[in-house]
Amino acid sequence: MSIEVVALPPGEPNFVFGGREPVLTVRPGTVVELSTEDCFGGAVRGIGDLPSQVCQFPYLNPVSGPIAVVGAEPGDTVAVHFVDIRPVRDWAVSTTFPHFGALTATHTTAMLHEALPERVWLYEVDTTRGTCRFQARSSDFSVELPLDPMHGTVGVAPAAHEVIMSITPGAHGGNMDTPEMRAGTTAYFGVNVPGALISLGDGHCRQGEGEVCGTAVEAAMSTVIVVDLIKGGGPAWPRLENDDYLMSTGSARPLEDAFRVSQHDLVGWTSELLNLDALDAYQLVSQAGLAPAGNVVDTTYTMLAKVPKGIVKTPAYDGIHTRLRETAFQYLNERGNI
Amino acid sequence: MSIEVVALPPGEPNFVFGGREPVLTVRPGTVVELSTEDCFGGAVRGIGDLPSQVCQFPYLNPVSGPIAVVGAEPGDTVAVHFVDIRPVRDWAVSTTFPHFGALTATHTTAMLHEALPERVWLYEVDTTRGTCRFQARSSDFSVELPLDPMHGTVGVAPAAHEVIMSITPGAHGGNMDTPEMRAGTTAYFGVNVPGALISLGDGHCRQGEGEVCGTAVEAAMSTVIVVDLIKGGGPAWPRLENDDYLMSTGSARPLEDAFRVSQHDLVGWTSELLNLDALDAYQLVSQAGLAPAGNVVDTTYTMLAKVPKGIVKTPAYDGIHTRLRETAFQYLNERGNI
Amino acid sequence: MSIEVVALPPGEPNFVFGGREPVLTVRPGTVVELSTEDCFGGAVRGIGDLPSQVCQFPYLNPVSGPIAVVGAEPGDTVAVHFVDIRPVRDWAVSTTFPHFGALTATHTTAMLHEALPERVWLYEVDTTRGTCRFQARSSDFSVELPLDPMHGTVGVAPAAHEVIMSITPGAHGGNMDTPEMRAGTTAYFGVNVPGALISLGDGHCRQGEGEVCGTAVEAAMSTVIVVDLIKGGGPAWPRLENDDYLMSTGSARPLEDAFRVSQHDLVGWTSELLNLDALDAYQLVSQAGLAPAGNVVDTTYTMLAKVPKGIVKTPAYDGIHTRLRETAFQYLNERGNI
Amino acid sequence: MSIEVVALPPGEPNFVFGGREPVLTVRPGTVVELSTEDCFGGAVRGIGDLPSQVCQFPYLNPVSGPIAVVGAEPGDTVAVHFVDIRPVRDWAVSTTFPHFGALTATHTTAMLHEALPERVWLYEVDTTRGTCRFQARSSDFSVELPLDPMHGTVGVAPAAHEVIMSITPGAHGGNMDTPEMRAGTTAYFGVNVPGALISLGDGHCRQGEGEVCGTAVEAAMSTVIVVDLIKGGGPAWPRLENDDYLMSTGSARPLEDAFRVSQHDLVGWTSELLNLDALDAYQLVSQAGLAPAGNVVDTTYTMLAKVPKGIVKTPAYDGIHTRLRETAFQYLNERGNI
Repeated sequence: MSIEVVALPPGEPNFVFGGREPVLTVRPGTVVELSTEDCFGGAVRGIGDLPSQVCQFPYLNPVSGPIAVVGAEPGDTVAVHFVDIRPVRDWAVSTTFPHFGALTATHTTAMLHEALPERVWLYEVDTTRGTCRFQARSSDFSVELPLDPMHGTVGVAPAAHEVIMSITPGAHGGNMDTPEMRAGTTAYFGVNVPGALISLGDGHCRQGEGEVCGTAVEAAMSTVIVVDLIKGGGPAWPRLENDDYLMSTGSARPLEDAFRVSQHDLVGWTSELLNLDALDAYQLVSQAGLAPAGNVVDTTYTMLAKVPKGIVKTPAYDGIHTRLRETAFQYLNERGNI
Repeated sequence: MSIEVVALPPGEPNFVFGGREPVLTVRPGTVVELSTEDCFGGAVRGIGDLPSQVCQFPYLNPVSGPIAVVGAEPGDTVAVHFVDIRPVRDWAVSTTFPHFGALTATHTTAMLHEALPERVWLYEVDTTRGTCRFQARSSDFSVELPLDPMHGTVGVAPAAHEVIMSITPGAHGGNMDTPEMRAGTTAYFGVNVPGALISLGDGHCRQGEGEVCGTAVEAAMSTVIVVDLIKGGGPAWPRLENDDYLMSTGSARPLEDAFRVSQHDLVGWTSELLNLDALDAYQLVSQAGLAPAGNVVDTTYTMLAKVPKGIVKTPAYDGIHTRLRETAFQYLNERGNI
Repeated sequence: MSIEVVALPPGEPNFVFGGREPVLTVRPGTVVELSTEDCFGGAVRGIGDLPSQVCQFPYLNPVSGPIAVVGAEPGDTVAVHFVDIRPVRDWAVSTTFPHFGALTATHTTAMLHEALPERVWLYEVDTTRGTCRFQARSSDFSVELPLDPMHGTVGVAPAAHEVIMSITPGAHGGNMDTPEMRAGTTAYFGVNVPGALISLGDGHCRQGEGEVCGTAVEAAMSTVIVVDLIKGGGPAWPRLENDDYLMSTGSARPLEDAFRVSQHDLVGWTSELLNLDALDAYQLVSQAGLAPAGNVVDTTYTMLAKVPKGIVKTPAYDGIHTRLRETAFQYLNERGNI
Repeated sequence: MSIEVVALPPGEPNFVFGGREPVLTVRPGTVVELSTEDCFGGAVRGIGDLPSQVCQFPYLNPVSGPIAVVGAEPGDTVAVHFVDIRPVRDWAVSTTFPHFGALTATHTTAMLHEALPERVWLYEVDTTRGTCRFQARSSDFSVELPLDPMHGTVGVAPAAHEVIMSITPGAHGGNMDTPEMRAGTTAYFGVNVPGALISLGDGHCRQGEGEVCGTAVEAAMSTVIVVDLIKGGGPAWPRLENDDYLMSTGSARPLEDAFRVSQHDLVGWTSELLNLDALDAYQLVSQAGLAPAGNVVDTTYTMLAKVPKGIVKTPAYDGIHTRLRETAFQYLNERGNI
C-alpha cells in the first residue's frame, strides 16, 4: 500500500489554538512532515540570552499548523500518531523564567517574593549517541541524559469559539507537557470545529515529569506525524496510546482536579472497552493504573492516567494505533530510517 | 456641565470576550444606556424550562457589546461606573444545572456521581418594594429577599489574542459574579487592545457570595453605565471602588490562588496609595481588610480583597470614582430617577 | 435567676487540642472568667523581638483550658458564648514570620525563595477609645483601626484519639481565625470525648478576613464565656451564631474545600430549620448567603458560610443563643459593665 | 557477620502515630519480623461484608508497633528497609467506601450527592504464581494482576506532641500509600521523639498510583524489615531509596502542594549530594525526574519525586541502602528464601 506523504509548508508561527485558517489540508491517513521552532522561537541561543530580554510575551511557544483533516466534524476523533521527532540542532536550552515554574511564586500563586534568578542552561545534543548533556552553571558538574524527544504542545481548535494561548493545556490538548508525547504514541482529540485544525510545537529533547522549573530541554524539531480520523466518539479530553498503555489526560487546577479528570476518563474508557460497569472499571483502574504528572507549571496543570494494554486488552478505536504503527514503519523503512 | 448620553444599539449577543468588532464607540466620560438578557438568553421562563433542554452550549451567558473607548490603548485603564441596574421583568429565575455548581461534581471536579436533579425556581420581582420572592419547590415555604441588582459579567477583550467564553472570569474581568458589581460601583480594567472593548451581561436581581448553586436570581436588565479612561496604570487584575471600599479581584484555581491574587493586588495598591513599603502594606491590609468570595462555581473562581477608604484615604486614580458618582447623580437627576 | 460564675485557674498553657486532662469542670450554663496569653506566649514585646528568635516551635499559640462540661458526651453539642473579650495590655503586636502567611512560600507551598523579611509591628491599644494604632515601619504613616476583639482559637478535643496542634483548625474548631468569634457570638461544637474539653486562646484586638500576613493584632485577653450543653445534635463542623446570622465553618485545603464544607453544612442546617429539601435549601443559601474567609494561612484554611436570621427565622438549637445572650447581659449588668 | 533478628510480639493494634509506648525496642541494624492486619482489621472477608457495617470508625487502618530504636533522638534519621512483604492469606479485598475516594464527594470535598454504592471485591491471591485475580462484580470479566506487595502506612511519632490518625500521611510518614514502599526499598524518616517510634501496617498485594477508589488490594502481611539509625540529618519529609532511584515524598493538599514539597525536597537532596547550587539542582531534577502520585484519596494527598541514581551517583546517607540490602540478602539466604 502506498502512503500519502506531504510536507507542512513553513510559515508564520501561531501562538494560539483556534481562530486561525489551516495552512495545510490533508486526507485521513496522510503522513505529514513538518518542523517546529523551540518554545523561545529560537531566540535563546546561549547562556547570555535571558528569555525575559530576548522574547516578548505573548510571542512564546510557537506552534506549527493548523492542519485541517478532510471530513473531520465536531464530535469526531482525530488521531495524531508520532512517527519521528528529531532535534535539528546540536544544542538545546532550558531556563528559569521570572515567576514561572512550580517552585516559585507566579502570577496566580501571587506572593511578595522577588523572582528567582533567571538562568539559561545550554545542552549539547548528540543524536548519534542519543544524549543531551547537562552542564551545571554553578560548578563543573556535568552529566549525560538520554535523549527522549517529544512535543510539549499538540492539540486542536477549542470548542465554544475560544482562542487559547498555546501555553495553556485543556480539553483541546495544547501544552500538556507530558513526556509520553514521543514517537510511537498516538494522541486522540475530540474535534470541535470542521477540519479539527491540528497544531503542534514545543519540542523537548527530554523532560522530567512535572516540568518543575517551567521549561524542558527545549529544541527545534523535525517531526513526522500520521494524521487520521475516526468518525464520532470524540473524547472529552485528549487520550494517548502507545504499544503498552492506554492513557487519559486531564488539565485543570488544582492538580487533584487534573487527576480526577484523567482518572474519570480512564475509568469510562476502561468501562467501555471491557464492558464493565463504572464501579468495576473504577476498581480495576485503581489497582492497575499509573498516575504520573504532565506539567505542574503551566496555566493549567496536567495529569495522566495510564492502564496497561496487557490488562485492558480490547483494542481501542478498532485498533487504529496498530495500523498507524504500521504506516509509520512503512514510512520509516521507505526512507531508510530504521 | 452637559453629559453625553448614548444608547447601545440592540444587536446579536456575544458569548465571548475578545475577537469581536465594537458595536458602539464612545468618548471617555460618556453615559451608555443598554440592556442585557439573562444568562439563559431568556429561554428559561418557567419551572418547566430546564436549562439543559432549552439552552444550547456554548450559547449561554450572552453579553452586550463590545463598546470601544476612544483613545484607550494597551496599558491604559478603563473605568466602568454603574449608574443604574434595573430588572426589566417582574420575574427572574434561578436553576441548578447538571454538573455545575459548588456542591456537585463538575466536568473538572470529575466524579462518578450522576448529576444532581435539575430544578428551576421562579422569583417574583417587585421593583417598587425592592424585593424578589423565593418560593420553595418542595414545600410552601416562601420568603422575600431584598433586591440588590448587579452584573455577574463585565470585562474587556483579553490579552494575548485570546478569545474567552463569557462564563470564564480572569484578568480581563468576565464572569466574576461578585455582588459588589452593583450601582454605585466603579470597575477598573487594564486595557489589552485598542478601544478596550467592554462587554457586560449576566444581570442578577441578587446573589449570595460564592453563587453556590451555580446561578443567581437571573434577570434581563436595563442598565446605565459611565465609561471613562485613565491613561496608563492598567491594573493586572480588575479593581472595584465604591464610596466605602477599594477592592481588588483575583480569579484563579485553586481558590487560595484567587485569594492570593486579590490580596497581592490590594497590598500593591495600598502600598502605592499610602507610599508604604510592601511589608507595611501587607500588615495594614492583613488587619483592616475583608475577603469575601465572588464565585466558586465558574471555570475559574473569584475572590475579592477589600480595604475601607476610611483607612486608605488617598484617592485612587486621582479621584475618578467621585467624579463618576457626580456624573451619575446628574444623569439620574435629569431623568427624575432620584 | 442567679448565674454560676467560676474563674479558670491560671496554669500551664497547652499547645494542643486533645490528650490533656481538664483544669476546670463546670456545669452547663456556667459563666467562666479566664485569661489567655497572646500567640507568642507574650515573648514578643517590641519591634526588636523577632518571633523566630524569642519563640520556640512548637510552643506557639498557647491555649487556656481544657474546660470539661458536666454531662457532655460524644454526639452532643457544646455551646461557647462569648460575653466579653478585653485586651489586658495597652499594646499588641503583629509580625511576619519566616515561611508563614498567604503571600509567601511556606513549608507546604514549598518554593526556592528565601523567607520574606521578619518584621514586628507594635500597636498602641486604647480600650477607652476603642482603637488600636497601626504605625508603619517604613514611614511615618500611622492610622487608627477600630478595636474588634476576638479569639482566633477555640475548640474541643478532637475525635479519633487525635491530639492536634493549637495552630491547626479543623472539625474540632481550633485556630479558625475568624473575626466572627467576638463577644456576642455563640460557637457550637460537636462533642468527641466526655466533657468536650474546651480550650481557647489566640486573642486578637482585631483581624482582617484571611489573616493574610499570618498574624493578627495579637494580644493577651481577659475573657468571659458562658458554657452550655445541648444533648445530641453535634454538628460535624463548628457553627456560630450571633444576633443577625447563622454561620457554618469549614477548615480544609484547598480553600474551595473549606468553602464547600461550610456551604454544605449551612445548606443542611437551613434545610433542617426550614423543613426544606436539600435543593431548596441550596437555592436559598445561594441567593441569601455570605462567604467570607477566616484564615488562609494556617495548616488548614477556614471559610465561613453565613445566612441572615431574618431569612432563616426558625430559632437554632431551641433558641439557646437568645438565652445565652440574656445570661451575658445579666452577668455584665451585675458587674456594671454595661 | 551475624544479624540480630527479633520478632515484634503480637499485640493490640494502634490506630494512631504518636502518644503510644513502644512495644519493642531494638538496636540499630536489627532485623524485625512482624505481622500486620489489613486496613479493615480483617473484618471484610467476603463480598457481603460492607466495611461501613463491619468496621467502626476510628478503628480502621491498624498499625503494628511502635518500635523504638535505641539511640534515636530528635533530629536524627531512622531508616526502615523492607526485606520481605508477604500476603498471609490466599485472598485479599478491596472496596469502595461511602464518601471516600478520588472520584466521589467526600467529607471535605463536600457535595450534595448521595454516596456511591459500597461494593466489595474479593481477590484470589496466588503467591506461587505471583498474582492476584480481579473478578468483576457486574460481569464475568476476570484478569490476573501481578503481585507487588507493599505497605501503605509506615512512619514515626509526629513532632509537636501530635497524635495523628493512621490514615493520615504527613511529615512523619503515615498513610502515604505509594507502591514504592515495597521489598527492596529503604525509607528514611526524621526523628521527632526519643526512639523514633516506628509503626507500620496497611499491606497491599498491589496498588495503582493514586489509589483512586480509596483502597488497594488489602491484605494481612508477614513482613520483615531492618531498622537502622543515622545520627543527625533528619529529613523534613520521608525519603525513599531503592537500587535505582532516590525519592522524596510530600503529603499535603492541594495536590500541587504535595508535588511542591516532594520536588523541593528532592532539589535540596540533589543539591547536597552533587554539591550544586539550588538552581542547578532545580534544573537537573526538572529534566531527569519522575513525579508519580502516591495517594489522592486520604486526608492529605501524597506525591513522589524520583531521580535516577544513574544521574545522582553520590551515595545517600553514606551508602546505608547498600548495606541494608546486604543485610537483607544475608537474612533471606540464611532462611533459604532466595
